[in-house]
Amino acid sequence: MPVLARLRDRLGDGALRGRRLAVVVHLEAKTACLVLALQEAGATVVAAGSNPLSTQDAVVAALAERGVEVHARHGVSQEEFTADLLRVAESGAELVIDDGLELTRRMAEHRPDLYAQLRGVSEETTTGVARLRALEAEGLLGFPAVAANDARCKHLFDNVYGTGQTTLTAILALTNVLAAGRGFCIVGYGWVGRGLAKAAHGLGGRITIVEIDPVRALTAHMDGHNVAPLARALEDADVVITATGLVEALDASSFAHLQDGVLLANAGHHDREIDVPALAAQADETIEARANVTTYVLGDRRVHVLAGGALVNIAGLDGNPIEIMDLSFSVQALSIHTLASGELPAGVNEFPAELDDLIARTKLETLGIELDEPTEVQERFRSAWMV
Amino acid sequence: MPVLARLRDRLGDGALRGRRLAVVVHLEAKTACLVLALQEAGATVVAAGSNPLSTQDAVVAALAERGVEVHARHGVSQEEFTADLLRVAESGAELVIDDGLELTRRMAEHRPDLYAQLRGVSEETTTGVARLRALEAEGLLGFPAVAANDARCKHLFDNVYGTGQTTLTAILALTNVLAAGRGFCIVGYGWVGRGLAKAAHGLGGRITIVEIDPVRALTAHMDGHNVAPLARALEDADVVITATGLVEALDASSFAHLQDGVLLANAGHHDREIDVPALAAQADETIEARANVTTYVLGDRRVHVLAGGALVNIAGLDGNPIEIMDLSFSVQALSIHTLASGELPAGVNEFPAELDDLIARTKLETLGIELDEPTEVQERFRSAWMV
Amino acid sequence: MPVLARLRDRLGDGALRGRRLAVVVHLEAKTACLVLALQEAGATVVAAGSNPLSTQDAVVAALAERGVEVHARHGVSQEEFTADLLRVAESGAELVIDDGLELTRRMAEHRPDLYAQLRGVSEETTTGVARLRALEAEGLLGFPAVAANDARCKHLFDNVYGTGQTTLTAILALTNVLAAGRGFCIVGYGWVGRGLAKAAHGLGGRITIVEIDPVRALTAHMDGHNVAPLARALEDADVVITATGLVEALDASSFAHLQDGVLLANAGHHDREIDVPALAAQADETIEARANVTTYVLGDRRVHVLAGGALVNIAGLDGNPIEIMDLSFSVQALSIHTLASGELPAGVNEFPAELDDLIARTKLETLGIELDEPTEVQERFRSAWMV
Amino acid sequence: MPVLARLRDRLGDGALRGRRLAVVVHLEAKTACLVLALQEAGATVVAAGSNPLSTQDAVVAALAERGVEVHARHGVSQEEFTADLLRVAESGAELVIDDGLELTRRMAEHRPDLYAQLRGVSEETTTGVARLRALEAEGLLGFPAVAANDARCKHLFDNVYGTGQTTLTAILALTNVLAAGRGFCIVGYGWVGRGLAKAAHGLGGRITIVEIDPVRALTAHMDGHNVAPLARALEDADVVITATGLVEALDASSFAHLQDGVLLANAGHHDREIDVPALAAQADETIEARANVTTYVLGDRRVHVLAGGALVNIAGLDGNPIEIMDLSFSVQALSIHTLASGELPAGVNEFPAELDDLIARTKLETLGIELDEPTEVQERFRSAWMV
Repeated sequence: MPVLARLRDRLGDGALRGRRLAVVVHLEAKTACLVLALQEAGATVVAAGSNPLSTQDAVVAALAERGVEVHARHGVSQEEFTADLLRVAESGAELVIDDGLELTRRMAEHRPDLYAQLRGVSEETTTGVARLRALEAEGLLGFPAVAANDARCKHLFDNVYGTGQTTLTAILALTNVLAAGRGFCIVGYGWVGRGLAKAAHGLGGRITIVEIDPVRALTAHMDGHNVAPLARALEDADVVITATGLVEALDASSFAHLQDGVLLANAGHHDREIDVPALAAQADETIEARANVTTYVLGDRRVHVLAGGALVNIAGLDGNPIEIMDLSFSVQALSIHTLASGELPAGVNEFPAELDDLIARTKLETLGIELDEPTEVQERFRSAWMV
Repeated sequence: MPVLARLRDRLGDGALRGRRLAVVVHLEAKTACLVLALQEAGATVVAAGSNPLSTQDAVVAALAERGVEVHARHGVSQEEFTADLLRVAESGAELVIDDGLELTRRMAEHRPDLYAQLRGVSEETTTGVARLRALEAEGLLGFPAVAANDARCKHLFDNVYGTGQTTLTAILALTNVLAAGRGFCIVGYGWVGRGLAKAAHGLGGRITIVEIDPVRALTAHMDGHNVAPLARALEDADVVITATGLVEALDASSFAHLQDGVLLANAGHHDREIDVPALAAQADETIEARANVTTYVLGDRRVHVLAGGALVNIAGLDGNPIEIMDLSFSVQALSIHTLASGELPAGVNEFPAELDDLIARTKLETLGIELDEPTEVQERFRSAWMV
Repeated sequence: MPVLARLRDRLGDGALRGRRLAVVVHLEAKTACLVLALQEAGATVVAAGSNPLSTQDAVVAALAERGVEVHARHGVSQEEFTADLLRVAESGAELVIDDGLELTRRMAEHRPDLYAQLRGVSEETTTGVARLRALEAEGLLGFPAVAANDARCKHLFDNVYGTGQTTLTAILALTNVLAAGRGFCIVGYGWVGRGLAKAAHGLGGRITIVEIDPVRALTAHMDGHNVAPLARALEDADVVITATGLVEALDASSFAHLQDGVLLANAGHHDREIDVPALAAQADETIEARANVTTYVLGDRRVHVLAGGALVNIAGLDGNPIEIMDLSFSVQALSIHTLASGELPAGVNEFPAELDDLIARTKLETLGIELDEPTEVQERFRSAWMV
Repeated sequence: MPVLARLRDRLGDGALRGRRLAVVVHLEAKTACLVLALQEAGATVVAAGSNPLSTQDAVVAALAERGVEVHARHGVSQEEFTADLLRVAESGAELVIDDGLELTRRMAEHRPDLYAQLRGVSEETTTGVARLRALEAEGLLGFPAVAANDARCKHLFDNVYGTGQTTLTAILALTNVLAAGRGFCIVGYGWVGRGLAKAAHGLGGRITIVEIDPVRALTAHMDGHNVAPLARALEDADVVITATGLVEALDASSFAHLQDGVLLANAGHHDREIDVPALAAQADETIEARANVTTYVLGDRRVHVLAGGALVNIAGLDGNPIEIMDLSFSVQALSIHTLASGELPAGVNEFPAELDDLIARTKLETLGIELDEPTEVQERFRSAWMV
């Protein structure tokens, strides 16, 4: 992670020294880089996974070996997952890197005492940022938070190119189906959805977008995709990918519209976008067809769910490329560093624009790409109304 | 303009009745629709062009015939242009639909007395919004303004698809060069620049992006384009298109890097992005090669400037498609209606999100495209932090 | 035309000296280059247009001024067109560059005496090559012909990139409709059709392909396009483009399926793919809406035909880019040179592969693009079965 | 394989009954379908792999269990591989489905007696077809052969979409690098190369093509790719993929131009396009970095070879999608059936066009896609020269 490496001096300036941080993100190999960079900057890090299905036990073990306190295990129940997160809370974390706000919201709910001691939260996902805003709207956000997801160096790259590529690659690698000519139904045309559409389209897929937001629907139309309501879209879909950031994007009422042989995969909010329990309840039979592919038999139709409905790129392959996580984790590291510096007011804050620029500039340097600078004439023009 | 037509009832609710509006936009055929819709809503409209090179005298005449006061003529000097705009100011306009803030900034500079009487300005372009913010930063914005350009229904469609397509079409129709394999240098990777890149790339062009913003440069790189500083980019460019929203994107110092036979076209801020006077001054000879193509001979190199450096899609062809202007002008009409209603505070305001949604929904209706609605479960999830 | 220019020595080696050539191609500006290159090589050229709607009278006049015998006039009737072609035949032409076999087939039909004296025909189009093969199948091809259309340097570039780009540009320039999100129905997925699909798709169009050939239909599907029978495809089409190389791709029975507001344009065989007379006969009213746009009113639907159903890129704009015609006419020039050299047997011949390579190499040189050469190991491998 | 299944009646018409067939193709899971379909048609099949690195021992075992005689083992030496193929020859095969002509050329070389008894060979690859033509040129092809690779239903789909997608997926799945913005050097712009370019480009890759054929180089240029000689192309390449159909596309002299960190993968002729032994000889150190990734240290540069230089999509993942192999193996099955029927003359034959059409039609039926039929007017036009 060359970008994160070049930020080392700034991270190590003392602001993080001795601070207790909780890092609650998908526990896959690349996460170790973030944790170790924060440790090196002087923080004490306690870690947990953000979803039991994406937790890799080997990574947990490796972090533990390096002296990191970790509370996570692959595939545990929701109760055990909550218990693990509360253990993280009890460890005295005052600053949190969160994903889906999984830790923070549980602290607010179950441990208001510890929640009251939080000094800052930096949130990784679209869903988590929405939850931060809901907390704020209810007057419950008494500390500064950063919408790290909304940093340009995060969502423009991680959500679009990273998740777009790896979700598609994971689906193709797990099933070896042909993308060319295949009908892809993508539910949600946010940053992730449009990355997915672009990737699937680039391999010859025929794309149909399902949306609830009118501007996004219109954008999808202008991008040359079909746009249809879910029920109609499913009737021509060979692959369905959820990317709404909400829950139950494919709910119990939708399964009647699925075609025989359809593949279902999730690229959105943890494992909650496909209602797999409802699907299992409707099924006549459930077959573990191959690794990470479960087949549900509904009458004469077979529906294949990838990676149990968890994020297919993380649970089914290796997550985002390291080049992407270098950007995303640089955002998180600088975000938590800014929170630790105590400069931000309570409430949801944007990630500071100059840090976004710094990360992008550093990345361009590592790529050997040069920028131009505005001329004096342009500088003057930019800041004046009269020229 | 079916979207604007469906908004007629809302526009005609009385808020605009008897108000004096100035409309300062490119005076090409479609502009008449906006002017007439505002008249029909009860307003008295005075019009002028936003740039002398894009003004079409036939449109001026047609508007005048319909009883609109117009102060504009194609190809006049900057002095005459300013004089025309001041005539508009003197007509008593209290609300302004502006483009590049050409009217508003002249009022602030030359007629502070009339400027003080303004009740609202709605601005069409990236450049104009920057100027509004400069006015605000200097404490000079005592009335409400709307950044209409930043409406999703404006910049996401007009700047990307409209200007992208029509700029490329204009260049190809004026010169009949082959896009496939051609080297396109696009200066600026904002909404316009990325629409241009997408369009040129779709016809087989090889794209190089020049940027001063690191995140945009990185985005261009991830979109598969080359990224280089201007001087280097020009050395391999067959076509150069400026789209910075600034001035002198191609300035006197850049011409030394141009290849023989290069085409220069502008899709950015009025006619100010290519320093044509400086180019003329460097040239050994100037040849009007064909309609809208001027050739400058610099030693053994020939440089062809399209449409005199004005917006090539407007000055060289028919501007944006009517479907696009239907969206953009619906934004402007609702924006000025909102300003007329007196609901907005002084300063730069965003275009109201619910109006953006209304326009997009109306457009989808005219296209026969259906949206889904969030389920109750999703609604609950969206507004809660605990679910 | 730098490629054609670099072939001058070869063309001028004497083989064409004193020979009488007929050149029957679209008489637009670039055609003059071919005619003059052949004259310079020593031939006597007699010219005519290949379709009355694409003939430009200014080009006819310019050629006549240069001493070329021309028999053509824009917009004449079929009878006059045939009479013009027979005048060309009577001029004593022994070698023909033909387009759609318009001259050759009329000679075979009306002047078998002159047809018997032909020494070679080089054919420009898919349709004309099919007609050559039909002549051959009937035992009527007693002289050598070259399927110039099938040269790689012709159909791979002219049909795909040239016609693809210029047809789309012509449609957009004539009508200023938005391509993004628009439904394009392309009838025929040969080289032209796939160039069109690629171009329209690159600007955000949604593509539906109509085919009668199963492999092409499957290719269109794998390229991510919709594939449907004509009647169904028309029901969702905003723009219909014919590119079959046949006749009546849109015939009288198809018009019932057209949507209100649809645009019809032809990129295929002369002006015969849209049955405009049948459409006019069905129409309640015919309106010349604007230059090159005729509107037919069928009940409550309006159907707009571009360029009278002639090749929209030639009749409605400037034809193919000069870079493309440089390749295509280099093929034609070398083809007729080869025929003049008397080396080819009677019947339909392929364009010699080494000449195709020569043209491509020459073009690459003008572009400054370098090729690799096979290594000795590779050369040995290529020609052996045992390595 | 629904297409192959629907051809069962035709295959089982008796022509294959009792015939001895050798099937020498990559022994991966899908191959079993072909072998069993041929058995079901009454043939006795003896099988071997076409390259030791792509042979999957589990598939060998499965075929053996079904009573197929198989001579193959993963990873054996060239000597053992040849010995296995000669065992196949000795089994009395009279008809061969070959790949790279691996069996046929060894029979010609080592067992001319058995070679003389061959009654037909159907060849799967570009390389193998070239070898067939070399045999024919030397007067050594005394029996009919079919260039199955050149069937439209084979190379247009298998080479383009199948190998394009799966090669890219394999590279991304094995290494998890980001495609967006990455420099891909593709050596060879035949059907495989252009499928690769399209796939990598669709995920945001920057493409440079290396070619020795001028028309292909020009096509790559017009498709918007960079074109450069190998040495220059390697200097900016992050990923190099060979797809020439030749040998030593990356030979000992090329390694000096490789960048640090580059990935090398092969999609072309067996494991012979990257000269891995030469690379190993130049390396200071060789590291098995992870499964299917070998790192060669050359001074301060690290070069990563995927799948040992074998076909990365087969040796590193699951080969082509089953939908693709359904088409390719339908070609092979009908090809060998035609050869068994004894209808073809000695020499290299094209795959019969009507069988190509049959396969495509059958595939379209399984997809529910409808074709149009030519009208009577069109039929007449197509077969006449006078209409």
